[in-house]
Amino acid sequence: MDREPLKKVISLLAKIPGVGEKSARRYALFLLQQPKEYALELARAIIELKEKTGFCPICGNIASSEGDLCAVCSDPTRDRKTLCVLESLEDLINFEQSGVYSGLYFVLGGRISPMEGEDLDEEQLEKLKHYVVEKDFKEVIIATNPKVEGDLTFYAVYDVLKDCDVAISRLAFGLPVGGSIGYADRVTLHASLDSRMAVNGGKKARRE
Amino acid sequence: MDREPLKKVISLLAKIPGVGEKSARRYALFLLQQPKEYALELARAIIELKEKTGFCPICGNIASSEGDLCAVCSDPTRDRKTLCVLESLEDLINFEQSGVYSGLYFVLGGRISPMEGEDLDEEQLEKLKHYVVEKDFKEVIIATNPKVEGDLTFYAVYDVLKDCDVAISRLAFGLPVGGSIGYADRVTLHASLDSRMAVNGGKKARRE
Repeated sequence: MDREPLKKVISLLAKIPGVGEKSARRYALFLLQQPKEYALELARAIIELKEKTGFCPICGNIASSEGDLCAVCSDPTRDRKTLCVLESLEDLINFEQSGVYSGLYFVLGGRISPMEGEDLDEEQLEKLKHYVVEKDFKEVIIATNPKVEGDLTFYAVYDVLKDCDVAISRLAFGLPVGGSIGYADRVTLHASLDSRMAVNGGKKARRE
Repeated sequence: MDREPLKKVISLLAKIPGVGEKSARRYALFLLQQPKEYALELARAIIELKEKTGFCPICGNIASSEGDLCAVCSDPTRDRKTLCVLESLEDLINFEQSGVYSGLYFVLGGRISPMEGEDLDEEQLEKLKHYVVEKDFKEVIIATNPKVEGDLTFYAVYDVLKDCDVAISRLAFGLPVGGSIGYADRVTLHASLDSRMAVNGGKKARRE
């Protein structure tokens, strides 16, 4: 009987992807052993997160409330001719936090994964195509993840956009900066060799 | 501005041990993308967890409210002559869920780790000694974790209890059941060899 509240928190936390039963238990026990203020603050923050956050109707980024444009779409200083297509909101936030990109975004909100039975939403693809054509983008960067699912997703998006009058590109594959060659897997090594950069005065190295 | 609630949830979640900044962000984004009911339910469950749960004043287990005895200490069918001393509440809960133990518990609520600057609470050790003597336990199983910190903690507890009139034991080291010899580390292999069990009619095998 006295474990009911604990079981409840554990079962709710275990619904978060990547959080197993044991991790959920560890988290719940940590919450239990914290001062009451922390638990109350977290509970309040979670409610506020849902109440004071919505999604941008154009790109899918976080917005201050449902229906509002996000900080990126409403920023007049962004490059409005370049669009970066991403699988998830998480990818968008990492891009924004890195500060390396100044164009606009479009979150697919999904990916193609035959193994996990995931597919892209046809409506999202239609919405993307319409957005690209209507706003006359010059370049679309299809920034899907460097794995099989990302490849499949890339080709599906490419297929939808290939007849539009727009340059289409994709993120470079290669060694992660700060990583080490000794630990790189062979596919990454192959990609980094395949896309090697010429350094002697811009003369292109041989590429297959 | 529109990311404040998200940042708050991320920073609170990142305080949970074992949850890094990136995991906290992933969890928060999952919460954000769930139906509102889930977030509300989780928030309520966290509050309830703190309000409807306390700790047993005897052993440190979870109790229905502060000051109440826990389900183990108040269960007349438990073996009241055997005490299992554990580092954490998490260890206790795993023991209870496994159903392999029928005695009482005592949670130290800490361990000795010179690397992380952790030490045992002197008062807890005094309380343990007093409990063992007062209740006339026959055996104390010091169930610290099979690592350096657990060894140090074991010896500290052993030191406090060694002059009491009680049998003291410790959990066996060996191959985890379901594991494989091919993947076992050498310390575990050595321990499993060192503590090998005789099988021919109870004749003890040679042990160093």
